[in-house]
Order: sequence, then C-alpha cells, then structure tokens
Amino acid sequence: MHILVTNDDGVQAPGLLALAQAMRQIGKVTIFAPDRNWSASGHVKTMDRPLRVHEVTLADGSPALATDGAPSDSVALALLGVVKEKIDLVVSGINPHENIGHDVTYSGTVTAAMEAVIGGLPGIAVSLHSPEDFHGALDYSTAAQVARRVAEKVLAEGLPERVLLNVNVPYLKENELKGFLVTRQGLRLYRDALDARKDPRGKPYYWIGGEFPIGVDEEGTDYGALKAGYVSITPLQLDLTARQAMEGMKKWEW
Amino acid sequence: MHILVTNDDGVQAPGLLALAQAMRQIGKVTIFAPDRNWSASGHVKTMDRPLRVHEVTLADGSPALATDGAPSDSVALALLGVVKEKIDLVVSGINPHENIGHDVTYSGTVTAAMEAVIGGLPGIAVSLHSPEDFHGALDYSTAAQVARRVAEKVLAEGLPERVLLNVNVPYLKENELKGFLVTRQGLRLYRDALDARKDPRGKPYYWIGGEFPIGVDEEGTDYGALKAGYVSITPLQLDLTARQAMEGMKKWEW
Repeated sequence: MHILVTNDDGVQAPGLLALAQAMRQIGKVTIFAPDRNWSASGHVKTMDRPLRVHEVTLADGSPALATDGAPSDSVALALLGVVKEKIDLVVSGINPHENIGHDVTYSGTVTAAMEAVIGGLPGIAVSLHSPEDFHGALDYSTAAQVARRVAEKVLAEGLPERVLLNVNVPYLKENELKGFLVTRQGLRLYRDALDARKDPRGKPYYWIGGEFPIGVDEEGTDYGALKAGYVSITPLQLDLTARQAMEGMKKWEW
Repeated sequence: MHILVTNDDGVQAPGLLALAQAMRQIGKVTIFAPDRNWSASGHVKTMDRPLRVHEVTLADGSPALATDGAPSDSVALALLGVVKEKIDLVVSGINPHENIGHDVTYSGTVTAAMEAVIGGLPGIAVSLHSPEDFHGALDYSTAAQVARRVAEKVLAEGLPERVLLNVNVPYLKENELKGFLVTRQGLRLYRDALDARKDPRGKPYYWIGGEFPIGVDEEGTDYGALKAGYVSITPLQLDLTARQAMEGMKKWEW
C-alpha cells in the first residue's frame, strides 16, 4: 500500500509527522504538503501561477515534498504525476483543531481529502478536538493510532464512490476513548466579530475576530460524538444538491 | 430590499457590473468584492492577516467596496458590519464560465453564496455557460436578467434554511432560452494534466494544465439543463453527509 500524507498546517507541523509515522505501520508513505499554513483556505486549484515543489526533511529525518500551493494542490500535483509511484490512499492531517459542521468547506484538511476523491482515490481527513485554551505541544498519539485504524478499515472494506471520511478524535488517551461512531455532519456556530483598527498612518483595517466557534451538541452528529468521548467518522460527499428543496422550487412559476 | 453583490473575478469585472445593474431594478445595491481575481480559490475565512477595504468606482460610475480578501471574506466583512445597512440577499457573479458538478466547492462565486447562507441570508451564485473558445467581450445581458428574475423569486418565495442557489445560464439571447429547470448537481470531468517546465535557472516548476473540464450531459442535472438550452437552478446545502454510505459503515467492527 502506498499512502500519500498531506495537511493544511504546513509540512513541518507536528500533526503531519505523527500521521506519517502511524501510516508507515501499514504501508509505504509519501509526504507531500504545503510549505506554509493554509488553514481555512478552502478547496483550491491554483491555475494562475505555476507551483514549486521542494524536497525537505522532517524532524525525524523523513524525506518530504513541500509545495507553495494549497493542500488540494499538493494532492492534485501528486496524482497528476509529480509522485511517480501509484497512490492507493490519501490521508490528510492531523489538524490540531476539530473540523465539524460547516467547517468542512473551509478546511484545507478536509478539502485535501475531497481532492483525493475527485482524483478517484479514497480520502481521509483527520482532526483532533484539542482543548480550546490549550498551550504547548499537543499529544497526537491517540489521533495517529485512530487514523491508522480508520485507514486499515478503508483499505480493507473500501469506500463508496465519491465519498471521503471526515474523522475527528477526542483529546483523550487511547484507552479512554468510548469507541467509534459513524455520524452525520452537525451544526457549527461561528462567533466571528469584526475587529476594526487603525494602522500607524490612521487608515482602517479589519480583522475577522471574535471567539472560537462552538458546535451544537446533538446525538448522531460529529460534535455530539466528540463531546461524548467517541471518535466521529462522517462520510462526506461532493454532491451538495439540497434534494428536499427541489420539490417546492419546481412549483415556482417563471 | 438591500442586495449585496459580489464576485470572484474582482470588483472591476464586467460580469459584476452587469449583475449590479440588474439587481438595481429590484432594490438598493451595495457592491463589495475582491480587488483581484480569486477563481477556483475555494471557501476562505482569512484569519492570519487583517483585511483592507477600499472605495472604488466602476465603469458606469457606481461606487463599490473592494477588499484584499477572498469572495467569502467580502461577504463575511459586509455581514459583520463593514456594511452598516441591513442586507436582505447576497448575489454573486456573474462568473464568465459555468460552475457545475464538483466545481461548487472550488468556486469563489459559489462559496461567496455559501458564506451568505452561513451568515443567515439567502445566497445566489450566477454563472454564464460561455463558449470555451470565446474571445472578446462576453454578453452578460441574458444572465443578468435571469439573475434578476431568480432574485425576485427568492425574495418572494423564500429559500429553505441553509440552502443557496447555484444558477447557470446558457449563452443565448433571452428569447432563445428554453426555460428554467430545477436541477441536481451533475458530474464534472476534469481533464487536468501536469505541465512540468524548467525556469531560466534550470529549476523545475509545475503548471496545473490540461484542457477545460467537461460535464456529463445527463437529464435532470445542471449540465444537462445547460446543454438543452435551459437555465439551471440547483439548490445546494452545506450538509455534505453521505447518508447512503452510513449504513454500510455502521457495520464496520472496531
């Protein structure tokens, strides 16, 4: 098995290294990730400029490829042939914060897995539900082992066509996990606020500020599972059609 | 009615001006768009740098706001208070190319409308199915009038919660249109290819090249409607859960 590992926090992020080390337990790993942080940068296809690819070395000595493109560009470049050897699976992460609810279209971690699916491969995004107020070095060991177990299952069972997995892991020791739940995407409540400031020359500029978003703690959802101590596994599709809205709209008269 | 008009091609794009002029037929318009092209840049929330907002003047003398943020940032900034007056509807476009199938998560035009929905407002994305090989000034007049009619319907009928409309318009005269169809998102076939080159110093760089993507011409889909001469209106949701995949996965043993 040949597994492509990427992320949206940049190639030197500790979550990527933890993920790559766990994936090496089940196959050959190629690391190909952005050279900087692309959090909340969405699903990108860079077409207005060429992309560079550099060889870099990670903290444990692993070789890796880094690009000045987005996470989804990393996956696209790899699948288009920058990585010569056939790839079987794309795993993205480990993101230091959860990706739940409406986060999924913003998230570079998740959109990298979307790009895998568009390229015809199974894609898995892995994120850690770390405490909001945490400072210091996060412990990625539980999430890395969860990622390994999910990847093994995906390789053994397969995924339906055009489906990716969005995996979120509670910040617990492995033996403290309640288990694994297949969930639906829940609701995310953003608490963004405008932070208007003046620069040293008196001209205005704006931060999108506010508080960290919260989730709606509902049974059966991604956030509900995390809050109850379970790993949340949400199958996602790229067909966004709101089918329940179609009938009503078909009655509109033009 | 107060309508926010934005796009992903940049505030000076002719498609935006055509859209703003059409929207002025039904309400007050505020134009707030990126200061440059953000095509295929996805759903962005800029949090690692502050954003600037400048007043600019469009080709017909209209005042507009331009930001160095993404299309979705424009909508977020407007809704967070940079635009003081209450907004009733967000319309994004007119994109010079269709946004169908898997395009929807890449598209700045569509993700701007997603941002409206996340902010609690109805959102409409409008794109023109112009000929692939077209050169010169596109005629946006049909698409602009279609956008006006769709916006009027949305304001009159309302949209279900958390649903946006992805509208694609054939490149036809208004009287040549076959009508309006409510469609599902179809399949997009990308034909990207790696274009590896050497810079003047002999170092490699990569373009994501290849041919313009095609769609699968299937009845009931966005692309099927366009090909048959109909306006395609696809309701989209932000819940990406692949419900049909959940049952099978629930049998996985951990």
